[in-house]
Amino acid sequence: MKLVIVGGVAAGASVAARARRVDEFAEIVVLEESGNVSFANCGLPYHIGGVIEDRSSLLLRTPAGLRASLDIDVRVSSRVTSIDPTAHTVSVRDLVTGKEYEESWDKLALCPGASPFRPDLPGVDHPGVMVLRTIEDMDAIKARVDQIVADPNRPRHAVVIGAGYIGLEMAENLHARGLAVEIVEMDEQVMPPLDKELSVPVENHLRAHGVALHLGTSAEAIRADADSMTVELASGRHLRTSLVILSAGVRPNTELAVAAGLALGPRGGITVDRHMRTSHPDIYAAGDVVEVEHTVLGGSWIIPLAGPANRQARVAAENIFGGDREYRSSQGTSIVKVFDMVAGGTGATEKQLRADGVAYLRAHVHPSGHATYYPGTSQMDVKCLYSPDDGRILGAQITGFDGVDKRLDVFATAIRLGATVYDLEELELAYAPPFGAAKDATNMIGFLAADTLRGELHSWFSTDYPENCAGARVIDVRSPKDFNRWHIPGAENVPLPTIRAASADWDRNVPLRLYCAVGFRSYVAYRALSQRGFTDVSTLMGGLKTFRAWHHVAPDHVPDPVVPDIPYPEDEEPHQAM
Amino acid sequence: MKLVIVGGVAAGASVAARARRVDEFAEIVVLEESGNVSFANCGLPYHIGGVIEDRSSLLLRTPAGLRASLDIDVRVSSRVTSIDPTAHTVSVRDLVTGKEYEESWDKLALCPGASPFRPDLPGVDHPGVMVLRTIEDMDAIKARVDQIVADPNRPRHAVVIGAGYIGLEMAENLHARGLAVEIVEMDEQVMPPLDKELSVPVENHLRAHGVALHLGTSAEAIRADADSMTVELASGRHLRTSLVILSAGVRPNTELAVAAGLALGPRGGITVDRHMRTSHPDIYAAGDVVEVEHTVLGGSWIIPLAGPANRQARVAAENIFGGDREYRSSQGTSIVKVFDMVAGGTGATEKQLRADGVAYLRAHVHPSGHATYYPGTSQMDVKCLYSPDDGRILGAQITGFDGVDKRLDVFATAIRLGATVYDLEELELAYAPPFGAAKDATNMIGFLAADTLRGELHSWFSTDYPENCAGARVIDVRSPKDFNRWHIPGAENVPLPTIRAASADWDRNVPLRLYCAVGFRSYVAYRALSQRGFTDVSTLMGGLKTFRAWHHVAPDHVPDPVVPDIPYPEDEEPHQAM
Repeated sequence: MKLVIVGGVAAGASVAARARRVDEFAEIVVLEESGNVSFANCGLPYHIGGVIEDRSSLLLRTPAGLRASLDIDVRVSSRVTSIDPTAHTVSVRDLVTGKEYEESWDKLALCPGASPFRPDLPGVDHPGVMVLRTIEDMDAIKARVDQIVADPNRPRHAVVIGAGYIGLEMAENLHARGLAVEIVEMDEQVMPPLDKELSVPVENHLRAHGVALHLGTSAEAIRADADSMTVELASGRHLRTSLVILSAGVRPNTELAVAAGLALGPRGGITVDRHMRTSHPDIYAAGDVVEVEHTVLGGSWIIPLAGPANRQARVAAENIFGGDREYRSSQGTSIVKVFDMVAGGTGATEKQLRADGVAYLRAHVHPSGHATYYPGTSQMDVKCLYSPDDGRILGAQITGFDGVDKRLDVFATAIRLGATVYDLEELELAYAPPFGAAKDATNMIGFLAADTLRGELHSWFSTDYPENCAGARVIDVRSPKDFNRWHIPGAENVPLPTIRAASADWDRNVPLRLYCAVGFRSYVAYRALSQRGFTDVSTLMGGLKTFRAWHHVAPDHVPDPVVPDIPYPEDEEPHQAM
Repeated sequence: MKLVIVGGVAAGASVAARARRVDEFAEIVVLEESGNVSFANCGLPYHIGGVIEDRSSLLLRTPAGLRASLDIDVRVSSRVTSIDPTAHTVSVRDLVTGKEYEESWDKLALCPGASPFRPDLPGVDHPGVMVLRTIEDMDAIKARVDQIVADPNRPRHAVVIGAGYIGLEMAENLHARGLAVEIVEMDEQVMPPLDKELSVPVENHLRAHGVALHLGTSAEAIRADADSMTVELASGRHLRTSLVILSAGVRPNTELAVAAGLALGPRGGITVDRHMRTSHPDIYAAGDVVEVEHTVLGGSWIIPLAGPANRQARVAAENIFGGDREYRSSQGTSIVKVFDMVAGGTGATEKQLRADGVAYLRAHVHPSGHATYYPGTSQMDVKCLYSPDDGRILGAQITGFDGVDKRLDVFATAIRLGATVYDLEELELAYAPPFGAAKDATNMIGFLAADTLRGELHSWFSTDYPENCAGARVIDVRSPKDFNRWHIPGAENVPLPTIRAASADWDRNVPLRLYCAVGFRSYVAYRALSQRGFTDVSTLMGGLKTFRAWHHVAPDHVPDPVVPDIPYPEDEEPHQAM
């Protein structure tokens, strides 16, 4: 049995390692086009930024090490130029010697990954326009940054095109090297994989660190100057810079598969079944190049992420050697650190659900990452999408500082296990003051969502403002001090402690739209008024924090917590007890 | 409708707050014996230690605030002296005025909590022997520490009796105030809620910070001296000290319930049904005073934790007003910070499973908290217990530094949702280098456990050593350098890269017991040898890291990471890629 694997980074290296464990005597050959296998591509931005000082720590395994410990024949700088599925061979070019040869296989695993998308712009081939995918890319970018920093004639300035995960990581790391950074993003928000209101805190945080954002526009041309380049935006702005990073997404490397006649899916990735088998019975594929089912949305999607790539590889290796394992789906769990901030999501976004016509409800909460009285915490923006039918969790997104990754993983686990918002109510998570609250953020989302499904809570949403306030009294139940700093235009201030008495003679038939800072006090007011005969009363989901994010109303008193330690507002409740 | 609530801290305050939301017009009276309601009792150690500077931040809600926002009649310093379940009244003593009065109720909620256990020792009533449960306790301990620190004649020394969560938190916080701290624990380990091998890293860490441990012994007497006390241990040691903290567990405050004829459970807590209703139809109870079902073990247990208390209170409040909610069970999820270290568990421990006669299997892994090449991570000790029948997760425990709380919450969520180790294999958690690995610790436990259930992995365990090595060759597959630093006595060194060739002429019928540092290299060797005709070959679960913890073999080269940043050993594998 001879297994040939095309690609030796995440999926490819994992197929090889697992294959060896499954079959000690198979011949296993890995053909990798770049000069390295099994390198830590998610770590590359941090070596450029100097956070990861030791370059060799990114080279997780070497060809020699894989041969010694796993008896795997690893060949780097080896480009597979074609596949003959009938003859069961691949053609290989050794990029060092130029030698071309054929390699036969009984089973073939395609793990060529994806390549950064290069938009077809005038000037895009300028050597200062760079992408980051391989160790070689990293070395080249780092060398250029070193030059820029050393040369007083060059602007210490970089433009990052594309504000997804890699774009934001590059922005942070170039900033760490002392470059002024401007980000250009075609979408109206950074982090297109998140819903808009979750991206706004990240945008505020980037700006607070001096990173300029050009949203809703695109680069039209890159013009070379003597010691610099000029990036011309569709908006008319010209950005003089020394370095352009293209991080506008990736495209699956399907050329070999197409030429070999393998079936592609609707989004242009290689079609595989749950066994990770392509349309050819002896050819498997895994990683960024394949299409897989989405855990929540179904259908066929390209979801290029490290975790799924590794697990797909494991499944492929088992099945290649006669096993019967399934890779069921990917849910798109992802996370990014942006300076001190953390943002991420799992499952479907509201944008995706709307595009797919899936019915959903929304819940927003803003609890702190851990007990407010214990130092070092800050409010999060937590959004959960769930089914109006049975409460099944469809997706979650979080932006904040401490504890964001933890709650994302709880949601990711819950979604994987098909949990409902009723299950969230019952979660018993690890609580001590440095780590959480007696009622965790995930419990609170559960309470809110389950109460909504039970008909015990009616909310109004920032997204539907101002239409949903037409003909209604908008009541701000915060303190007069907070009200006077900023309030929704036209709102009346009736602080919670006074609302029972104040509302005694109000017209029960005039709709009431209540709100406060994050939603807790207005929820208490909602319960008080809804039991007092008001026929149409609702509370603003997520409070002003979500409202401001959605409507881009700048926070008045706390600009952006570069050092995150916002005390919880007056909305504290007994859930913080103990 | 009039609801009287006995106790106003975690469960009591939550019953009151939720009750008001459910019924805007009910009369709600809270009777709290101490001088404060709804205070952050989990935060008390940190105010003593100076971490939480602002005392008022621990007073989450005040009686005046609860009246203003929720129209709740809160009476502090009000001791309920008896319950008349027939007349539907309680007798109350105002501890400030001495006034006694009766208060009637339609429904009664008992949330009196638990009290620290005071062992019956000579000298235990000395004023320097203190417990921590209330704000008043905290103030008293803090005042005494202030005195000790200010008085050169007093030993700057404290003894903590009991090494559970509060004992360890107090040790850390007294140490932070400059006191030498010694801990006395009757059990042979700190953190009795964890299995022994998980507690050893915590013990090493405590000792590395200069905290002395007296395990497997107890205080027999406390003798008062002029400016100090002497704690006499059963071991014969005498500890001269200025402060003794009793943290040897808590006992439910059931006196009122017993006198009122309410049923108690087998462990001495108040019996409630899933509606949180006691044996009296109009009396409910919640919090540390009740017995509840254990999620994994069934049966009736006292599990005094803040999270369950809050959720029980919510369920009780709903049902008191005619709702139909259930509190199903508690799983004992808990966590503690010990200096830089974090330890905790969820579900059943091995000790509990053994005591209950439940069949289980074990998995141990030692991955780093996040990608090893990104700064600031360290290896964890992760233990998972699961069913040999269907792979259901029975419990998990983790000790480590970064990311411990996150994995505990993933396990807690999985256990709550009835997940199996096969589900762990498929978890898709949030990965970027600062937060995790492409194959998370929870995935790795899943791989290991599921492979075991599939018969693809045979392990030997530290707990059964040396019996399980009798008649076997013990093979250390690490490098000669590592082997020469320390190895299991009698082991042979056959490094992984040489084992295929070296084993060619070995007797296939002699049992082989393989091991390495954490279990990965010996697992690869296991796969190689088990496919080469060896009839009895197995790999040491958890490697030397677990072995050393279990057998108290001091780590030779890395004492204890006070500043945690242990590089992963040579056991790196492609799972770290990307």
